[in-house]
Amino acid sequence: MKIILDCFGGDNAPEEIVKGALLALKADEKLTLVLSGDEGKLLPLLNGAEAFLPRIEIMNAPEIISNEEIPTAAVRNKRESSLVKGLQRLSDDAETDGFVSAGSTGAVLAGAFMFVGRIKNVSRPALAPVLPTVNGGNVVLVDCGANVDCRPVQLGQFAMMGAAYAEAAGIKNPAVGLLNNGAEAGKGNELTKEAYEVLAGLNINFAGNIEGRDLISGAVQVVVSDGFAGNIALKTAEGIANSIFALIKQGVSAGGLRAKIGAALLLPTLKGLKKKLDYNENGGACLLGLKKVVIKSHGASKASSICASILQARDIAAGGLIKKIEQGLSQF
Amino acid sequence: MKIILDCFGGDNAPEEIVKGALLALKADEKLTLVLSGDEGKLLPLLNGAEAFLPRIEIMNAPEIISNEEIPTAAVRNKRESSLVKGLQRLSDDAETDGFVSAGSTGAVLAGAFMFVGRIKNVSRPALAPVLPTVNGGNVVLVDCGANVDCRPVQLGQFAMMGAAYAEAAGIKNPAVGLLNNGAEAGKGNELTKEAYEVLAGLNINFAGNIEGRDLISGAVQVVVSDGFAGNIALKTAEGIANSIFALIKQGVSAGGLRAKIGAALLLPTLKGLKKKLDYNENGGACLLGLKKVVIKSHGASKASSICASILQARDIAAGGLIKKIEQGLSQF
Repeated sequence: MKIILDCFGGDNAPEEIVKGALLALKADEKLTLVLSGDEGKLLPLLNGAEAFLPRIEIMNAPEIISNEEIPTAAVRNKRESSLVKGLQRLSDDAETDGFVSAGSTGAVLAGAFMFVGRIKNVSRPALAPVLPTVNGGNVVLVDCGANVDCRPVQLGQFAMMGAAYAEAAGIKNPAVGLLNNGAEAGKGNELTKEAYEVLAGLNINFAGNIEGRDLISGAVQVVVSDGFAGNIALKTAEGIANSIFALIKQGVSAGGLRAKIGAALLLPTLKGLKKKLDYNENGGACLLGLKKVVIKSHGASKASSICASILQARDIAAGGLIKKIEQGLSQF
Repeated sequence: MKIILDCFGGDNAPEEIVKGALLALKADEKLTLVLSGDEGKLLPLLNGAEAFLPRIEIMNAPEIISNEEIPTAAVRNKRESSLVKGLQRLSDDAETDGFVSAGSTGAVLAGAFMFVGRIKNVSRPALAPVLPTVNGGNVVLVDCGANVDCRPVQLGQFAMMGAAYAEAAGIKNPAVGLLNNGAEAGKGNELTKEAYEVLAGLNINFAGNIEGRDLISGAVQVVVSDGFAGNIALKTAEGIANSIFALIKQGVSAGGLRAKIGAALLLPTLKGLKKKLDYNENGGACLLGLKKVVIKSHGASKASSICASILQARDIAAGGLIKKIEQGLSQF
């Protein structure tokens, strides 16, 4: 298995990215990595990692695409960037299985569309993060922002691709829910009412509508949404979780000695909880509908998230994601 | 000030509703209440509350509308229900200032449209809950589900009505944000891109786009959304908050003695936090755009929530909500 890593994307590039690469190589001794980025800067970071060098290829790519650049212009103009060279290599080299970047979401999307390309008959690729659920499982959210205006049939494709993704990740017969403003059939806006009928006609385990409050309850393994509502749900979830931890901290500082001792004793529980809710720990968001596996890791990714994203790319490539999506498309 | 209370709506009717009424009468000695419901069942609940009787009028309404009924049919057919008689009275009696119900949302909406009616030139009334913010303030969300398909101009009216509501509740020059999938101007789906231009042209304190993660950060006092995305945001927020508290409990039981002592010491902090995040404590959702003040209290409301909703109806009626909305409509 050979994964390409964009070493100059994200807030903590290149140090944490390279550290993440080494963690992944340590975790899987059959893994090979292509590190895309400025060779002169990458080589010193590999000091002391000589044991892994036989499984590392450095692909020199001296340019960097920043978060501030206009995505389409950046990927068009910076052909020597770590992002573009990595995606180009993914497209050209049949031996490579996936690509991971913590760079600008817009640039990863634009670059992936341009250089990797859609699977034939996929209407719109979708961005699908994996969220942890309360019962210790995971849920895939499709789409979380790549497509803000959708037609019902596109939500049907998101559902099929989300189910294929969950299956490629080892979940048998994943339950698929349609994000809606009520659980009963017949609820919804124009889009979700029509999408309900489309999803009900697909060869997936369709569990009907689910409300925002069931997003991470574990009721379903795949949640389907247009990218606008999906983005609102994802960011609201993130915002509320962060707010609650901030409020606990505030309450502890205001609560005097008693609260401080309590918090200290409860610390392992709270830390475990925070880790559980941190979707970075679960790897990145997969871009579904492309000819190859592309993972967008969080911009703030540290080594552990990068490692998780690499192993995630490996797993879903090995799980046959692309083939499963190609097969599912016969329904459309 | 005279408020009408539907005593047979909600999970805890009529006992908690009547208890809430008495709490409100105790809190405000100038308040008068009309209790709508089955007289034979209400009278025994007033035993021991003789001191308040001069400020209580019981309006006999023997029928009950349940959550299971089809809203429009129920309000049309059950003219003797506590809900319909209450709304009818609100419409007919110029001495009444507001109406509160914890009954079925659909029935309250349908009944209010039918018997109270829209303010002239209001395109669509909207349901606006008040959420607590991390910095100790509040934020009004308009709309949270009354209108799942909207046009840009309707979002403009929601913005104006939300600002009027916040002002009637005592917030000067409230900042209004448009719920969107990115903070930068130019972001959004077809609806929010156009709505942005509408909101920018209004005589309100428009703060631009806000993302889901800023819903309860306190960045703005009014968040505008179509009812679909607003519902997703509201229920996701509720679900995540509940999930985190469930996980803390779980972590505490699994964490052994150390975690249990920690939790016990931290209990006042956690309880205060839960209360802070419980939007029931902030009163109910206001139905904006009607000729009079109508508050939908949460179905699970207990006495304290009912009391909060009654005082909320009093405050925004006294704050001139209806007049402010009528004035704001001249912009459309």
